[in-house]
Order: sequence, then C-alpha cells, then structure tokens
Amino acid sequence: MAEAALERLIEALRRLPGVGAKSAQRMAWHLLQHERAAAGELAQALLAAVARIGHCRRCHTFSESPVCATCMDPRRDASQLAVVETPADQAALERSGSYRGLYFVLMGRMRPLDGVGLQDLGAAELLDRVADGAVKEVILATSFTAEGEATAHLLAQALGARGIKVTRLARGVPVGSELEYVDLSTLAQALSDRR
Amino acid sequence: MAEAALERLIEALRRLPGVGAKSAQRMAWHLLQHERAAAGELAQALLAAVARIGHCRRCHTFSESPVCATCMDPRRDASQLAVVETPADQAALERSGSYRGLYFVLMGRMRPLDGVGLQDLGAAELLDRVADGAVKEVILATSFTAEGEATAHLLAQALGARGIKVTRLARGVPVGSELEYVDLSTLAQALSDRR
Repeated sequence: MAEAALERLIEALRRLPGVGAKSAQRMAWHLLQHERAAAGELAQALLAAVARIGHCRRCHTFSESPVCATCMDPRRDASQLAVVETPADQAALERSGSYRGLYFVLMGRMRPLDGVGLQDLGAAELLDRVADGAVKEVILATSFTAEGEATAHLLAQALGARGIKVTRLARGVPVGSELEYVDLSTLAQALSDRR
Repeated sequence: MAEAALERLIEALRRLPGVGAKSAQRMAWHLLQHERAAAGELAQALLAAVARIGHCRRCHTFSESPVCATCMDPRRDASQLAVVETPADQAALERSGSYRGLYFVLMGRMRPLDGVGLQDLGAAELLDRVADGAVKEVILATSFTAEGEATAHLLAQALGARGIKVTRLARGVPVGSELEYVDLSTLAQALSDRR
C-alpha cells in the first residue's frame, strides 16, 4: 500500500465524523473501484459548499445568502424567537407546523469539558439581536439533555437580566405514550408541571 | 433547508458506503462548521486519486504506475502467485512475513445474486497470466466465507483444467485458541485435514 494518492484519500476520509481507519479504507476502495463518477461529484460538491455556504447574519444557520430565506420571510412573526441547537432541530420545529416565529441557531451546544462555552455559540449576537425591541419572547428550544439544559439555563439568566420574556419548551409525557412505559423522571416532571 | 449547495453535498456524501441520510447530514454540517480546511483537502484528495490511481496491469491492485511496486520487485518469487480478494487481504498476507511470491488481486468476490461473476473479477486475465509458464503454483487465498469458497472452487477448476498446480490456504484451528472455544465446523475441518 505504498500509493501516495490512495493514502492521502484515506487520511482525508478519516477526518469525517464517525469514520475510522477501516471505514475510510473501505470508502476509498469503493469509490475507486465502483464509483469514480460519484467521487468526482463529491469533490465538486465539497468545493462548491465550502465556497458558497456561510452563516445567516441574523440566525446563524447555514446560508448561501447573507440572510437566510426564513429570516427574510415577511410572513413570519418577528416577535417570537426560538433558540435551537442545530438546523435539524429547526427543521423538526418547522415540521410540527405550530411555530411561525423566527429562529436563532446556536450551531452546537455547550460542551464545557471540550472548552465550548456560551460565547462560542454566538450568545453575544443573540443578546444583540433581542436588544432591538422587536423580539417580545425568546423560546428556548435546546435539547433536554444535560448540555442542552445547561445551555438553556445560562441563556435564560442572561436574557432575563435584560428583561426579555423567556420560555422553555414543555417537558412531559410524549403524545401517544402509555404511562406505564414512560421513564420516571419524565413522569415526575409531568406531575410537577401539571396544568 | 433550501440551500442547494448543502443539499448537493449531503446527496454526494450519501454515495459513500455505509453512510445514510442522517450521517451524511452530520458529516456535511461538521465539515462546514468545524473543518472547512479538511473539506477542501478531501476534495483535492478525491480529484487526485481519481486522476492518478488506476489498476496494476499485472496484479490488478490499485496503482499509480502501470505496474505496481510489488509486481516490479525482482526479489519476489515469480513462481508463486497468491490470489486474494482485496488489497487488505494482500496486506495481511504481507504482514504474516511468510510469503515472498507475487499476487493477483481480484478486487472483489463473486456475488452471484448481484450479478458479479468470475469474469468481473478478472478471471480471464488470471488465466492469461498463469499461461506464461513462470507461475508454477497458484495459492487460492480468498476468504473462507461462502462466496470466497465458491470463488476458490471455480478458479481451482479453471486453473486445474490448464494443468497448473493449485493450492488453498489451510483451514483449521487458529493459533492461540483453546479447543473448547473453537466453532464446530472449524474443528471438524481440522480433524479431517489432520496431518
């Protein structure tokens, strides 16, 4: 295996998340043996994406234009701002069909052990954004994991100190579940948040 | 998610073996958010590999030159030819340190249900290769799976009909194992092949 171009390709594929040495080798061989056209297309797609895709100036999600289509949409309710971790979370809220406000995408979550804090998630830009007076309510829609909860907690503190109304998605029993199979902390939360 | 360049990148990543829609999305976001330099390097590595890497004319493995370094090496014993499925299998035999002959790499294995037969694995070139008189023994080192065994069986028939000496790697108890934990078919084979 002294082929330099092959070694280089395997090394480059290993930089993809979740791809180890064996998978990278298998990917490289598969592309060279069966999918040379796909390999060329992947190279062009990578170059095009790196050249064209930046972040929306207002919500921080990936966007080819300075401001993304959602932020530009005049039919959205500018008084509500949902804070989500990823574009996937944003897409999930959109699919629910019950939110018509705007978004702020953190593009990650706090990982204190890896040195990723609030400032790396654009907290300063979020505070600037809500200072314009148009935003009446910030809905914290980060994950209900330890990191997502910590992110929500710190953002709530910072926003609350500026007098902004801050809400959090409700925790409780998922629609369609039988109580018998719901985990205990969810059930305890649903009981304490009963209405 | 109406960003065309992002959609195109996710589609291209999905062509990699073992990568589904969710993984492709995660890879694309990771590259764009944290590893733009790595994305560019991957693109260049793909283009270089597709442009430079072909197959060795003699053994069919990946090679940047018409004949690979192993086939060009005058210290190797040209009278022995090991038939393996992949460059990884070839590398494993090399690491064993007990083979000094040449190789023929099938670059795959028979998959009759997918329409991949012996002719797609370069069987004709293998028969041409052994017809030159230099090869005295062909060692079938395909996998000990159903497909690898079928490949070895058909190759043995074709080569035997041409009067070439054909051998197969020995099946038996792996070095270092306790008999109690060896699977039954391996044990039965080791018993019938006892020496």
